[in-house]
Amino acid sequence: MKACGLIVEYNPFHNGHLYHQEASRTKTNAEVTVAVMSSSFLQRGEPAIIDKFSRTQAALEHGVDIVVELPFIYAVQYADLFAYGAVSILNALGVDYLCFGSESGDITEFTKNYDYFNAHEDLFNEIRQNHLNEGESFPQASTKAYEAIGLRDGKLDLGQPNNILGFSYVKALRHLNSYIQPETITRTKSHYHDETIDYSIASATSIRKDLFNAGELSDLSRKALPEETIKQLINYQQASGLWHEWELYFSYLQLLVQTHSHEQLRHIHGMIEGLEFRLKQTVNQANNFQEWMELLKTKRYTWTRLQRMFVHLLTNTTKTEVDQYKERKEPPYIRLLGMSSRGREWINLRKKSLDVPLITNLQQLSDPLLNIEERATDAYYSPIPPQKRYSLKRQEIKGPIILK
Amino acid sequence: MKACGLIVEYNPFHNGHLYHQEASRTKTNAEVTVAVMSSSFLQRGEPAIIDKFSRTQAALEHGVDIVVELPFIYAVQYADLFAYGAVSILNALGVDYLCFGSESGDITEFTKNYDYFNAHEDLFNEIRQNHLNEGESFPQASTKAYEAIGLRDGKLDLGQPNNILGFSYVKALRHLNSYIQPETITRTKSHYHDETIDYSIASATSIRKDLFNAGELSDLSRKALPEETIKQLINYQQASGLWHEWELYFSYLQLLVQTHSHEQLRHIHGMIEGLEFRLKQTVNQANNFQEWMELLKTKRYTWTRLQRMFVHLLTNTTKTEVDQYKERKEPPYIRLLGMSSRGREWINLRKKSLDVPLITNLQQLSDPLLNIEERATDAYYSPIPPQKRYSLKRQEIKGPIILK
Repeated sequence: MKACGLIVEYNPFHNGHLYHQEASRTKTNAEVTVAVMSSSFLQRGEPAIIDKFSRTQAALEHGVDIVVELPFIYAVQYADLFAYGAVSILNALGVDYLCFGSESGDITEFTKNYDYFNAHEDLFNEIRQNHLNEGESFPQASTKAYEAIGLRDGKLDLGQPNNILGFSYVKALRHLNSYIQPETITRTKSHYHDETIDYSIASATSIRKDLFNAGELSDLSRKALPEETIKQLINYQQASGLWHEWELYFSYLQLLVQTHSHEQLRHIHGMIEGLEFRLKQTVNQANNFQEWMELLKTKRYTWTRLQRMFVHLLTNTTKTEVDQYKERKEPPYIRLLGMSSRGREWINLRKKSLDVPLITNLQQLSDPLLNIEERATDAYYSPIPPQKRYSLKRQEIKGPIILK
Repeated sequence: MKACGLIVEYNPFHNGHLYHQEASRTKTNAEVTVAVMSSSFLQRGEPAIIDKFSRTQAALEHGVDIVVELPFIYAVQYADLFAYGAVSILNALGVDYLCFGSESGDITEFTKNYDYFNAHEDLFNEIRQNHLNEGESFPQASTKAYEAIGLRDGKLDLGQPNNILGFSYVKALRHLNSYIQPETITRTKSHYHDETIDYSIASATSIRKDLFNAGELSDLSRKALPEETIKQLINYQQASGLWHEWELYFSYLQLLVQTHSHEQLRHIHGMIEGLEFRLKQTVNQANNFQEWMELLKTKRYTWTRLQRMFVHLLTNTTKTEVDQYKERKEPPYIRLLGMSSRGREWINLRKKSLDVPLITNLQQLSDPLLNIEERATDAYYSPIPPQKRYSLKRQEIKGPIILK
């Protein structure tokens, strides 16, 4: 049984992923789909609208066979570290393919360019570091460095967000000397930032906006979202009383900024130089999260960068903690969140040859990475009333979700 | 103009204080009453029901002439440190008398016993330290040490809470070589912990219980509370949408315990050895603050001790910070919160001879103690919706409240 690995978030803007999932399987002829999924917070620095258990359920109902957790420490990071964490898990699991969507859609462009990149990697790192030192964001600096070593014009366009992410996957595969074969499909035109709902393939931002403005599922969202996702959105709102968004965490973030010293803020991962002062200066000027972000945002402190920093502030994730996981070749564990019966078959075949413990709940192992994961879950659930929160949290120590 | 100093909290259980204030003035023949008042959090480790500005207004309307702030760092402490902070401010202001309520009611008992205590202070400190090391609370350990040096039987009963506090005032006066003359009146029988409302002089606990159970002022409270207090309670609820109580801070405290490491918790002032583990173990078991307290409470971790620790956790007040202020002879500033016209006259007379800056708002001076005060205000206002919070917070940078 060949398995195809996907790296996903399954926040209710799945359609892109659903399409991607379908297409990947067709392309690789794999019989099993294994998804590495972000847990409570997403790569762009946002709380997932519904929790990881609901998203696992939706993913399984959408036809994914296995869902494993992308540890929080890797999930809310710039492309290279996000990719490294996710790929190291697929590699430890031993899938056969890794499929991703890209603007390019041609895998040879990625692999060919990797060889070129590899020969110029030192120069690339130096140039990127210079741009980072000048205060540019990670994607900006990366794009410029790719360009400077001659990796943009006429070859793979590393100014496109999905190409950048895909190239990070290929780099991670090579760094890990992985046997996994990369494959890519063209990513359709619905972009991340579109603000109006597209009936066929809706973007994250437009659905999110629609959800939070109405506080309930509008007809538009119902048309744009797959049935399984709608079911999970409704179930989750019944169980928790809410859908997660930054506004719900605003007063927690304010309290943390108000009560931390500058020195303490500087320990937080993502607190770029000077940002601690800007946070303190603006904390009492905004009436909500959106307003605060507008006050904070500059060319240097991009929206994504600020949001990621807020995730790390909320969860008290320090620079020291993240640095420990940057160069790790193997994940300390693989956590299974859910599986179909076909997924279970595949897992049973793979089980014996795994070098890494396969766990299904939070108490099965004692590991610092799991403590960080629990912190992230706790912080994520904070705005939910205690009684409801406990039954949600209890899922952390149940077995995996099994689709019959 | 002779001035009489009082040390008060003016939480709406004032009646004791009102009586005390009246009686003090009669006893000393002072023309001016100067109250040192706790700011946002009270000595027993609770948020004040309404903020310091509303309580200042009520105090002035009750006939107090001057209200100055007891810095947060001293306000939420065991008797000796609380007393030391408050007395050092009255001393710097140069009042003539210090009046307090006590079970004894006879000031010679305090002064006579101080001389005896002074001759045995080293022994006292040693015995108290031993009891503290065995895990006893500060009042327990103090009572036993007073007894051990022979200061209980037949003399001043230092097993009574108000006698203990009063004796701490007298000790502070002596340590500061103050010229202030102490005076005491008998404290009436309504005790701190009575749970039913007494029509004449109601206790804090009974009124608080009545307020928070009903969510509005019941007829009972209206009868028990003075008119000015009722007015301030109603005004504050309109301005902020709430009355402060621990339950409103529950999810903030949970998040802090969940996301702090044991090591980080140990830096917090009041985190007695081992308590960090107990906090982590119980944080997910309680549905509200009251339940959490019941789970945490032991003979060693008394209710008051736990509540004070929670204040310091919420405001991120560290052991290092508090230690800096333990032995300070002079306060870094005196902050005037409000005055009557008679109070203004007195202040104008005193002004030139003050050795300490007299400030009226938070931005007049740059001092670490003021930063801590601002943190306390911010943490205190946290549960209030942002828009309402800002207009309340703005009072920190206005001048003092003046009663015409």
